[in-house]
Amino acid sequence: MMNTLKAKLFKNGISKLWDFMRTHDSVSILIFNISRQCFVVVKQFRPAVYMCEMEEQCPQYFENKTEESWCPLSDFLPASKGITYELCAGIVDQPELSLEEIACKEVLEECGYKVPVTSLKRITSYRSGVGVTGSKQTLFYAQVTDDMKSSEGGGQLEEGELIEVVEIPLQDSMKFAYDETFPKTMGVIFSFMWFQSNIAPKLQEK
Amino acid sequence: MMNTLKAKLFKNGISKLWDFMRTHDSVSILIFNISRQCFVVVKQFRPAVYMCEMEEQCPQYFENKTEESWCPLSDFLPASKGITYELCAGIVDQPELSLEEIACKEVLEECGYKVPVTSLKRITSYRSGVGVTGSKQTLFYAQVTDDMKSSEGGGQLEEGELIEVVEIPLQDSMKFAYDETFPKTMGVIFSFMWFQSNIAPKLQEK
Repeated sequence: MMNTLKAKLFKNGISKLWDFMRTHDSVSILIFNISRQCFVVVKQFRPAVYMCEMEEQCPQYFENKTEESWCPLSDFLPASKGITYELCAGIVDQPELSLEEIACKEVLEECGYKVPVTSLKRITSYRSGVGVTGSKQTLFYAQVTDDMKSSEGGGQLEEGELIEVVEIPLQDSMKFAYDETFPKTMGVIFSFMWFQSNIAPKLQEK
Repeated sequence: MMNTLKAKLFKNGISKLWDFMRTHDSVSILIFNISRQCFVVVKQFRPAVYMCEMEEQCPQYFENKTEESWCPLSDFLPASKGITYELCAGIVDQPELSLEEIACKEVLEECGYKVPVTSLKRITSYRSGVGVTGSKQTLFYAQVTDDMKSSEGGGQLEEGELIEVVEIPLQDSMKFAYDETFPKTMGVIFSFMWFQSNIAPKLQEK
């Protein structure tokens, strides 16, 4: 799924080299449970985040490490340092499925809700990790009810996914979004804010 | 600056391997020019974005490419396919400087405005590229005037930066943010929206 390549590009007569990582495009989904008036997000252990924290707090650990050497991690830092709150998301690796179909599959696998493809609302798309991967992310909104819950979610264990489904009450959501003690992706912050501007006013009208 | 490592982590008794890329933390800055009522962003050619587009549109090009082989890019796709709109930003690689000092340096180098460190407003921080780099990004807001403009900006040529400074009029900004024909980062979309909620109302009061 992910490998590194070097690119040689010519610009203004100068040839340059860049490292970049090949990754897949992805979809992410802001899920709002209207029965419970809460957002449904996922909490995940992220090795890359953990390693960043390690590097900051135990830089000596990385000395003399090369691309070939392993980093057997142990108990320097608690695992909680590698946990982030994220939107339900998945990579686009099945050409026969539409982005919407992949999004619905992820909502079911990770969060346990059966969402009809036609009920997804596309919010926008953007480029992520422009310095490294540059892949395209498409963001959707899915409104769900308790009736649509069909399983526990939690991701595909056989693929090594260990995902905890977390509900963030709407009334606490902006406080959560800006509370930096909960590490999170920009997708969470942005989409909570998007909801406030685009969906919340309509909910209040009803 | 950037290299790849493998991490071995133990979780629930299972050992797993991940690739990840070591990168620096970074700062990004939403710049609003109050004299001209416009946002100041940067437009940059991003090799990683270009390669993503290549992979989508010319997948045959990547067949049999390994980590060691170069990809000499040529005229398959116009360079414009690799251009993204981004916030002024920079990596945190000088331990003797505060995040705010680095942010001010980047605003000057890339966009040509001299901003006092104390006038920066911290918006929030978040994790980017959680699957690959997991680095921490801190987002600031800087309000500038025409009087603060001291150079053309454009980045450091000797470091291979080729940056075009672009002004987005406030009145067009939300349309721009959601127009997917302008490839951009989530930082741009989020911060324009943040401005609408947090700064625009105060401007109108004045």
